[in-house]
Parts: sequence; structure tokens; C-alpha cells
Amino acid sequence: MASTDKPTDPEYNKGAPPPPPPPSATVNCSVLAVTLRVLLFAAALTAVVVVVTSDQTKFIVQLGSYREAKFKHSPALVYFVVALSVAGLYSIITTLASLSVMWKPNLSTKFLLHFAFWDVLILGLVASATGTAGGVAYVGLKGNKHVGWVKICNNYDKFCHHLAGSLAVSLFASCVLVLLVWLSVYSLHGRIPK
Amino acid sequence: MASTDKPTDPEYNKGAPPPPPPPSATVNCSVLAVTLRVLLFAAALTAVVVVVTSDQTKFIVQLGSYREAKFKHSPALVYFVVALSVAGLYSIITTLASLSVMWKPNLSTKFLLHFAFWDVLILGLVASATGTAGGVAYVGLKGNKHVGWVKICNNYDKFCHHLAGSLAVSLFASCVLVLLVWLSVYSLHGRIPK
Repeated sequence: MASTDKPTDPEYNKGAPPPPPPPSATVNCSVLAVTLRVLLFAAALTAVVVVVTSDQTKFIVQLGSYREAKFKHSPALVYFVVALSVAGLYSIITTLASLSVMWKPNLSTKFLLHFAFWDVLILGLVASATGTAGGVAYVGLKGNKHVGWVKICNNYDKFCHHLAGSLAVSLFASCVLVLLVWLSVYSLHGRIPK
Repeated sequence: MASTDKPTDPEYNKGAPPPPPPPSATVNCSVLAVTLRVLLFAAALTAVVVVVTSDQTKFIVQLGSYREAKFKHSPALVYFVVALSVAGLYSIITTLASLSVMWKPNLSTKFLLHFAFWDVLILGLVASATGTAGGVAYVGLKGNKHVGWVKICNNYDKFCHHLAGSLAVSLFASCVLVLLVWLSVYSLHGRIPK
């Protein structure tokens, strides 16, 4: 109890926790997190809508008939739509949860932990879906002469433009998820006494 | 200064930080992290080696000639090999870094932050590469009759078995990276005073 005998010693408070971060800093981080989650929702919704509306029917001269390009024809694009839909739904839930704990710094520490855990999983899902759709879209764009897969983007321009746009938005959603995990980690780190 | 007048008051220490986690707990987490990073290295190396050794030459009856299946023929597989190589290299660097800070709890807090930041990026890279290669491998396995892409796995069995094995290992690497981010986040959360 040596320290209790020296209340005026400048070293006295060395072991005490630093003052908690000002509420404004916590709220700023929360506002940023909510903004990113709203962006994630917008990106996921856009990506899904753009792919779902990509279907195109065209007269193929070589075949002498009308042929359809549909996203449902490719399991990769179906996976992409499902994954981005899950991410969109997740962003709605977490936006509401973020808003509900914005003014409760104590509760928000627990939420930061849970958000970081789930954000990482959703990032894995969105990144893999972007990769899957991107890989197949690239074959559609360039073809692969080694295995005889013909390119289709010379015939189905609207379909491919929709795909490209959707992939760009999905890549943006992945970046937003990375930022969200970083923000959670950074916020948790900021609450550790130095 | 009322509290300093009552050193025996049980409420006295309420505002003080909780005792730091026992060194054994910190070391246990570090040992787990190092183990996971070694696993990540093993998985990345295996995935790369298995894909790089997948090349197969076979006599195709329909074409009446020998044809090769090479991973270099597919940009998706090249991206997969590059991404997993980066992950492997990253795992070596971070394993060494983890080992070097294992016995320095103060320094390790800063490292946990950096590890979590980078692990998230590498997770995005590995997950997207797994998706890209998986999407193209699925077309190789099943083909796509809607766009006239023929399946190739009925001819190149060794090539496809290698791809499947490599994709499974790469999925495992993604899971290891998720666990690593979780561990960093959990360790950071454990250092926040309740």
C-alpha cells in the first residue's frame, strides 16, 4: 500500500486506467460504421439487381436462332446472387444493431467483438463470390482456346456489361467489409489502456 | 481524494484496471496463433505445389492427337497460384514476427492490431482466389451446355483431381485465416478492462 501513502506523488496514477475515450470519438466511429454498413447494403443490393436484370435474348447468326443468356444458367452467378443477398440482409441487421448501441459505449464493446467476428465471415463469402463470378465472367469475355470454350461477350453485350458493373460493385462491397473489420479492430485497440 | 483516505475500503480498487491477463494466457494465445500460421503456410504451400504439378498430357480420341491440360492455360489458376504464394510468404513473415513477440505482452498488443489488419487483406485475397479457381474448375467438371462450354474432367482426370485437392486445401487456408482474425480480435477484446 505504499502508493496510498503518497497521494500527491506524480507517479501515483501511473497504474490507473487512462480516461475513457471522449464520447464524441466513440460516436464518430459508430457513425462511420453505420455509414459503411449502409454503403454495404447499397452495394449488395445494386450488385444483385444488376445481375438479376442482365438476361438478354439475341439472334445468333451462326446458329440461325434466338438464344438467351441468363444468369440462372451459370451456377457461379447464382452463387454470386445468393452471397450478395446474404450480405445485403446482414448489412440491414447490423445497421439497425449499430444504431441501437450507438449511445451505449459499454454495450458497444461487446457488439464490436460480434460485428468483427461476423464481418470477417461475410467478407470471406463476398470475396469468394466475387472471385467465382469474376473467373467465369472472364472466360465469357476472353474464352479459352486451349479447352475450346468460346467467348460469349461478343454476342451478349448487355449481359456482359451488367456482369462487369455488378462485379465492380461487389469488389467495392468487399473493400467496405475490410474497412468495417479494420474499424472494429481499431476501436477495440483504442479501448485498451496504454 | 476520499478514496485515498480509505485504503481498506473494498470499493477502493473499483476504478483501477483489472489485473493484466496471466502471462500463461497470453502465451497460450500466441502459441495458438503461431500454430495457425504454420498451418496456413503448410496449406498454401500444398495448394500451390498440387496445382503446379497438375499438368497432364493425354491422347484425345475425338481429336486424334495428344493434348495438354496446363494450369498456365487458365488465368484463373494463375491468379490462384499467385494468391496462395503470397499467402504462403506472408505466413512465413508473420510466423517469425509472432515468435519474436511471444514473450513481450506489451509489444504484442501493437502486433495484434497489425496482424489483424493484414490477415483480413490476405483472407480477401485467398477467398477470392479460391472462388475464382473453383468457378472455373466447376465449368471444367460439369461444362455449361447453355453457352457450349464442354467439360474437360472426363478426359483430364489427374488434372482435375489435383485441382479439387488444391481447392479443398485452399478453403482450409481461408478458414485458418478467419480463425487468425478471430483470435486477434478476441485477444484485443480480452485486454480491455471490464
